[in-house]
Amino acid sequence: MAGSTYGTLFRITTWGESHGPAIGVVIDGCPSGLSLNEEDIQKQLDRRKPGQSKFTTKRNESDTAQILSGVFEGKTTGTPISVIVYNQDQRSRDYGKIKDCYRPGHADYTFDAKYGIRDYRGGGRSSARETIGRVAAGAIAKKILEQLGIDLITFTRSIGDICIPETEYHYEDIAENILYMPNNDYAKKASDYLESCMKNQDSSGGIVECRVKGMPAGIGETVFDKLDASLAKAVVSIGAVKGVEIGDGFEASKNHGSNNNDAFTCQNGSVIKKTNHAGGILGGMSDGSELILRAAFKPTPSISKEQQTINTAFEETTIAITGRHDPVVVPRAVVVVESMAAITILDQMMINMSAKMDALEAFYCKE
Amino acid sequence: MAGSTYGTLFRITTWGESHGPAIGVVIDGCPSGLSLNEEDIQKQLDRRKPGQSKFTTKRNESDTAQILSGVFEGKTTGTPISVIVYNQDQRSRDYGKIKDCYRPGHADYTFDAKYGIRDYRGGGRSSARETIGRVAAGAIAKKILEQLGIDLITFTRSIGDICIPETEYHYEDIAENILYMPNNDYAKKASDYLESCMKNQDSSGGIVECRVKGMPAGIGETVFDKLDASLAKAVVSIGAVKGVEIGDGFEASKNHGSNNNDAFTCQNGSVIKKTNHAGGILGGMSDGSELILRAAFKPTPSISKEQQTINTAFEETTIAITGRHDPVVVPRAVVVVESMAAITILDQMMINMSAKMDALEAFYCKE
Amino acid sequence: MAGSTYGTLFRITTWGESHGPAIGVVIDGCPSGLSLNEEDIQKQLDRRKPGQSKFTTKRNESDTAQILSGVFEGKTTGTPISVIVYNQDQRSRDYGKIKDCYRPGHADYTFDAKYGIRDYRGGGRSSARETIGRVAAGAIAKKILEQLGIDLITFTRSIGDICIPETEYHYEDIAENILYMPNNDYAKKASDYLESCMKNQDSSGGIVECRVKGMPAGIGETVFDKLDASLAKAVVSIGAVKGVEIGDGFEASKNHGSNNNDAFTCQNGSVIKKTNHAGGILGGMSDGSELILRAAFKPTPSISKEQQTINTAFEETTIAITGRHDPVVVPRAVVVVESMAAITILDQMMINMSAKMDALEAFYCKE
Amino acid sequence: MAGSTYGTLFRITTWGESHGPAIGVVIDGCPSGLSLNEEDIQKQLDRRKPGQSKFTTKRNESDTAQILSGVFEGKTTGTPISVIVYNQDQRSRDYGKIKDCYRPGHADYTFDAKYGIRDYRGGGRSSARETIGRVAAGAIAKKILEQLGIDLITFTRSIGDICIPETEYHYEDIAENILYMPNNDYAKKASDYLESCMKNQDSSGGIVECRVKGMPAGIGETVFDKLDASLAKAVVSIGAVKGVEIGDGFEASKNHGSNNNDAFTCQNGSVIKKTNHAGGILGGMSDGSELILRAAFKPTPSISKEQQTINTAFEETTIAITGRHDPVVVPRAVVVVESMAAITILDQMMINMSAKMDALEAFYCKE
Repeated sequence: MAGSTYGTLFRITTWGESHGPAIGVVIDGCPSGLSLNEEDIQKQLDRRKPGQSKFTTKRNESDTAQILSGVFEGKTTGTPISVIVYNQDQRSRDYGKIKDCYRPGHADYTFDAKYGIRDYRGGGRSSARETIGRVAAGAIAKKILEQLGIDLITFTRSIGDICIPETEYHYEDIAENILYMPNNDYAKKASDYLESCMKNQDSSGGIVECRVKGMPAGIGETVFDKLDASLAKAVVSIGAVKGVEIGDGFEASKNHGSNNNDAFTCQNGSVIKKTNHAGGILGGMSDGSELILRAAFKPTPSISKEQQTINTAFEETTIAITGRHDPVVVPRAVVVVESMAAITILDQMMINMSAKMDALEAFYCKE
Repeated sequence: MAGSTYGTLFRITTWGESHGPAIGVVIDGCPSGLSLNEEDIQKQLDRRKPGQSKFTTKRNESDTAQILSGVFEGKTTGTPISVIVYNQDQRSRDYGKIKDCYRPGHADYTFDAKYGIRDYRGGGRSSARETIGRVAAGAIAKKILEQLGIDLITFTRSIGDICIPETEYHYEDIAENILYMPNNDYAKKASDYLESCMKNQDSSGGIVECRVKGMPAGIGETVFDKLDASLAKAVVSIGAVKGVEIGDGFEASKNHGSNNNDAFTCQNGSVIKKTNHAGGILGGMSDGSELILRAAFKPTPSISKEQQTINTAFEETTIAITGRHDPVVVPRAVVVVESMAAITILDQMMINMSAKMDALEAFYCKE
Repeated sequence: MAGSTYGTLFRITTWGESHGPAIGVVIDGCPSGLSLNEEDIQKQLDRRKPGQSKFTTKRNESDTAQILSGVFEGKTTGTPISVIVYNQDQRSRDYGKIKDCYRPGHADYTFDAKYGIRDYRGGGRSSARETIGRVAAGAIAKKILEQLGIDLITFTRSIGDICIPETEYHYEDIAENILYMPNNDYAKKASDYLESCMKNQDSSGGIVECRVKGMPAGIGETVFDKLDASLAKAVVSIGAVKGVEIGDGFEASKNHGSNNNDAFTCQNGSVIKKTNHAGGILGGMSDGSELILRAAFKPTPSISKEQQTINTAFEETTIAITGRHDPVVVPRAVVVVESMAAITILDQMMINMSAKMDALEAFYCKE
Repeated sequence: MAGSTYGTLFRITTWGESHGPAIGVVIDGCPSGLSLNEEDIQKQLDRRKPGQSKFTTKRNESDTAQILSGVFEGKTTGTPISVIVYNQDQRSRDYGKIKDCYRPGHADYTFDAKYGIRDYRGGGRSSARETIGRVAAGAIAKKILEQLGIDLITFTRSIGDICIPETEYHYEDIAENILYMPNNDYAKKASDYLESCMKNQDSSGGIVECRVKGMPAGIGETVFDKLDASLAKAVVSIGAVKGVEIGDGFEASKNHGSNNNDAFTCQNGSVIKKTNHAGGILGGMSDGSELILRAAFKPTPSISKEQQTINTAFEETTIAITGRHDPVVVPRAVVVVESMAAITILDQMMINMSAKMDALEAFYCKE
């Protein structure tokens, strides 16, 4: 199934290697008539670009998106939107160790096992630069969702074991600290922690949380293509994600039904839930409450501390990964999680339009 | 995308409502030449059938699988295998409260929101009986994997906060206790805990773990259809699952790279890892180590304790769900998680066969 | 990709062998709220069932459809609709020659080449009985299209070289002759011709035509999933079809642009075309004119005349196929072509609902 | 389903408008280890490029393909191959009439009906330049097929009613005449005929034929994804195709079974057919004989003769399409048909690798 295409009606196909000439994405199925320009995409890309803080790699890439198709006179036309980002910082260099070694925690060995060949330059296809295409596509999905009254707020919930309790979220802080945390005090602690990691030539993991407000109820299919199942795939497909939760997630496994069930009530004619342990999804469909999604990221595998490994001849060796690497992937991954969530939700909303005969009749039997 | 079809080359389509005439599955793409009979399927179905212990519903269903197509003279033919299970315990009854109320923690409201209609009898399509089709298909996938040297061991890891540490796993215990836990002592504690839940008219959540031994390296696609991403979708698509983990999962988010990275080494000419924090998947592809997958299940939402809710006219009311309900879904869900894992792995292994030119030439250029 | 599933949003999966216990179909993605009962399906199935005339096999099957899921209190619920038809006429018999020989014009050899095994009883999966599932699903699609103001008229255009010119179509005749031809005089000639074929232990081919009135303009995707491309696949996937045409089809290849182009004009505020060489499709999308589709069927390969062939040991032999076989497949294939057209059109109409931002906003932003 | 993606395991996604900055394709699922460079692609692109003869448009485009990803050190890596062709001849011009009118025989009206907007410059997405992506992808598929011993020969069979009988094919002539006809004498006649069309400000249709030698038996799925059904979709998805045939095609509808059935026999241990009315496909699967496929193209709709039409305000007007247009699309479409056939066959061959348990065991159980 190839594997670089995602989505059914809003469908994206990404391509490109870290140190190849360019990286890009084709977005097929974008509804026509949406105002769209390169700035809409650039805004989101800038949230993941390197060199923004002391915790992000200094790679000197402007990551400038160009739209090559699908937009005419400032509007989408319904045809595929091709977005390209040329790789500018491809200085020739010595890839010696990376070429011949399998870096622990990386995909070097598995790529060789699967394909018998691997573009070792900068991680090739398994580089975090692969997410550029996701973010460009996500920018479009997010813009559409906003026009439908749906907002995504995404942030760093924890770094290492510095985790912000839900009661201390201050969303206005997210834009104020380089870690995209919704609490500047926790961000300060996390920042100190990351400095100590760096001093130890080490790295840290963390958790990203995404919250979606304004979801209509009933989005999602009922068996395999449940909204939560689709979101789980979307998020785990991001490199370095090792776990995903909806609502209370793993905590729910320790709870009682009487406490975990959210009571329904009615407010201003709308159905609401008094609590939201479910995280906005029941039976795989949105229930109209806030959607809550979390992704656990492992620590950056590239560390300058020496590690034991083998080379491609299966001989023991050691490797210390020099160069520019973030001590934690989470802050730059925030916008990637948001993008995958936006794409998934939009796709399911488009599919949902034909769920009822009423809807078909209203659409096709006008007057 | 409909949503009741799963898989690309090994593709299953399930159908059926809890209290309709029957429930079933069509398995398309099953390789030909596999020995298969109804007993192969029944064996797995019996692991999820009701009435097996004091913690499972007393519904009196034999859940007998019949194969209606795709098998000839004891062998699969490569054509779709249709498996049907007739619902035998459809005694007519009064569905009054369930018909008119939205049960907390259930999909009643979201079904109505999406479709404007819902088969309220026994939960209809959102009943746990929907998993019968998954298990029947999973039985076939599991049998194929076994012939390829791949074994799945699946069990209850925790119930409530009674969680078995990895160091205390005794796989031989799994078959000896009604909770499918790999430690009889913990099973005893969990059993006591469930009794107390039942006394309180309440229920509990828990965690299922699946381990896969014998995986070849390189299985899984590299971007969206990563093996872990696909497994995440497979598992979260099971009703009541609120979280999924691969390897260390959420714990990895608190770890350092130096500790979380698994060092490669070589043993008898094979690449192995000294530790397995990754849970057998690197860059979305199997790395040849044991694959480790966990799913968090919320507490059974059906409890006999009175709960606040609304009816379909959006008026406040209360509901106490009488009848037969498991106080925990986890033991019966063990085989469902295993089934979804088996189907997903097999599908990806089939896709993987055409990854290399070498493989195409070996297959098609026999002299 | 397995191959027994068709469609994206309105998706069908068929299963079953000619002489197995049953044959069926699962329809997933059917909009909820449609009135549906078994009679709706039976009506179409009866158009393809055997034993209706001297030119159809005498196989004594009632082909009675049962709905096993997806319908509740007379309405579709949006969940998968499982339809089953039990095979009643499975008298045990001697399949000797068919078991060991490759019948010319049949799929016996190719099944063995692909799968290394084949259910030889009555053709197994390659039997025309496979179309039962298509027709059952098509009955539902057709009913929905009718509610959207779209009508399909399908008939036998030619048998052998007895072909009805378009100017002599009398649609009211279709129901009056056993060949489903829109001209009773031509039907009489065709009938005589078939009698002579039978006397010669031989068979005939023919052409089915399907016309669709009431199509809205703009249905179909613009590149690979064009409406005409999708219809072509749908129709050629029916056994024995060797060609397909839209509008003027192959005749267009001999024409001039000045004559083949259909001039646009406006009538009562609607765009119409003065002619319809295009058959209602321009650039892969419906243009609002009548859609015209033709399928060429080869002669029934089963003939009682002796034919040269080989056995499964690759030794030369001869075969005369005795038993009950139609001298022409076309009359019973009429409803199959119509079914595949209806399914394809409905699926594309469902996909089309999300083509424009306007439509998403109208659907989701009801204040 | 979007509609610009094609294929399951070998999957292509095309994008780009005629007068946008660029046009391209992403090929996902290409097996790793194939030697590939830009020249391999350019060679096929040059067969469709404009300005090659007096019958092809003088548009001055070099149509130079660049590979942006998926190839490393001259070998495919298994990751997506992105191919881009920049549009060089985008001189700014007055699109006046085309902007405001619906050209007869074109997709202008249907694009507006579907999307409410259309990139009118040079036909936008419905331009024949859209096929550049198909041909680039087809070049790769064709190269792989060649390495598996499978050759495609594709040519112009007819222009207008000048049709070469099969008995007069001289394949060596194809490269010798500008119309790619396998008979120079017929090519001369067709050339004269086209000159007269041009004098009359008119255009002509024609037929392309593709023959595939070296096909293994058993390729193709057995119900909806039959090889012939998939080829039919592939070919009809090319703009201007109005019909498709396999083997005898529409002629088969006039034939008798005794004549149309191809007798099996055995030659040097291989199964062959004494005739090939079937065109190499039985029951949707290749039978090992030569595969024969034909596509009927309508006359180029762009003619300089004045035609009646309406403008976008639905008012009557006339249009004469000036500028550079081929009087027949067929010669340049030859390589497009070949490309779609190659992609389809390769995709089905990749799918076919997992059809048998034997194959899985041979692949995965190497001791």
